[in-house]
Amino acid sequence: MTAAATDQFADLLALDRAAQDLLFREARTANAFTDEPVTEEQVRAIYDLVRWAPTSMNMQPLRLLLVRSDEARKRLLPHLSEGNRAKTASAPLVAVLAADVDFHENLPRVFPHKPDARDAFAGSVAARRRNAHLNATLQVAYFILGVRAAGLDAGPMTGFDVEGVHQEFFAGTSLEPLVVVNIGHIDHSATFPRSPRLDYDEVVREV
Amino acid sequence: MTAAATDQFADLLALDRAAQDLLFREARTANAFTDEPVTEEQVRAIYDLVRWAPTSMNMQPLRLLLVRSDEARKRLLPHLSEGNRAKTASAPLVAVLAADVDFHENLPRVFPHKPDARDAFAGSVAARRRNAHLNATLQVAYFILGVRAAGLDAGPMTGFDVEGVHQEFFAGTSLEPLVVVNIGHIDHSATFPRSPRLDYDEVVREV
Repeated sequence: MTAAATDQFADLLALDRAAQDLLFREARTANAFTDEPVTEEQVRAIYDLVRWAPTSMNMQPLRLLLVRSDEARKRLLPHLSEGNRAKTASAPLVAVLAADVDFHENLPRVFPHKPDARDAFAGSVAARRRNAHLNATLQVAYFILGVRAAGLDAGPMTGFDVEGVHQEFFAGTSLEPLVVVNIGHIDHSATFPRSPRLDYDEVVREV
Repeated sequence: MTAAATDQFADLLALDRAAQDLLFREARTANAFTDEPVTEEQVRAIYDLVRWAPTSMNMQPLRLLLVRSDEARKRLLPHLSEGNRAKTASAPLVAVLAADVDFHENLPRVFPHKPDARDAFAGSVAARRRNAHLNATLQVAYFILGVRAAGLDAGPMTGFDVEGVHQEFFAGTSLEPLVVVNIGHIDHSATFPRSPRLDYDEVVREV
C-alpha cells in the first residue's frame, strides 16, 4: 500500500512549497545510505539552526553523541535491534540523542527570567526526568527536520536497548538515550513504499 | 540578556534562508495574540503538512483537541498554571495535544509491513504508553513548526495539570495530554527578550 503525499492545502501555508517538500512531503526515512560522507560542519549547521526552536523554560536538555569511527560503531551495534544493525553499519554518521536529566544546572544562564528555577528542580529528579524526556524529545524532532534542512536524510530508530546504550556510552552520567538517528544521503533501494497517514478527522476534533 | 540568532552556517543548508528564518530564527514563542482569527482550514493545512513527518512504525499517536468556544475555554483554564491562563484566554485558538495509548489499533492499516505489530502491542500497556508518549511528543514538535509554517505563531505550554485535563476532556478514553499550544498571530508586546542557546560544544561530542 502506497500513499502519495497530499498537497491540496499547500498554498495556504507561508512556508514555500520547495521547503514543504524538502522537510515533509518528499523526505523519507532512510534505511540505507550512499557512501557520501557527512561532515562535522554539516552537523554544526544543523545544530545552529534547530537550537532556536522552543523548549519549556528554554531548558534545552538534548545532548548528541556522534558515532563515526569503526571502533565506536562496534560498541553501538550490539545494543540495536537486529533489524536495525545493518542500517547503522552503513550510515556515514550516527547520532545517539539523549536527554540530560541535570539540565537544570544551566537554567540560571539560559532562563534568567526565573532565578529560582534551578533550585526548584534540584529537589525532584522525577520532575527533572519528566521535563528532560519531554523536551529533549521535542528537540529530537527538530533535529530530524534539521537533518533534512541540510539536504541530508535521517533514519531515526527507537529499536535499541536503552539501558545497554546508557551503560556503554553514558555510564555514571545524567544522560538517558532516547533515539538513535542514522544520517547520510539516502539509497532508495531500501526505502519502503510510503505508508498511509491518518486523516484529519481521525486525529483532530473541536470541543 | 538577549541572544540574537546566529546564521554563520545558514548557507550550508539546503533549506532556503527565508524558510530557516520563518521556522527557527525569527519565530518566537507567543505569550499574547492579536485579534486575528485562526481558521479550521489553517489547522487542516498544518496537519496535512506535518502528518508526513516520521514516527516509529508510522504509529502516529498524536491527537488534537481544538478549544475555541468560550464554554470549552472555561473548562480548560482552571487546569493551567496561573501564569499561563491569560495567554490561553487571549489566544484565538488553543490545541490540547495528547498521546493515544491505543494507537496500536491502527497499525494493520498504517504499518502493513509488520502484520503482527498490533497483537504484539496489545499485551503491554507499558510499552504502548512509552511508544505513544515518545512518538506523540515528536509529533508535537512537528506541529509547532507546522503552526509557524502556516505563518502563525505558537505558544506551547507544559505548565498544566495533566490529570485534570485528562479528566476534563478525555475521561474514559486512551488519550493522555502532553502539551497545550496557544495559536494565533503574535502580539510582541508580551514577548520576552530572546534567551541564550547552548553552544555546539556544550551539546555535541564525538566518541
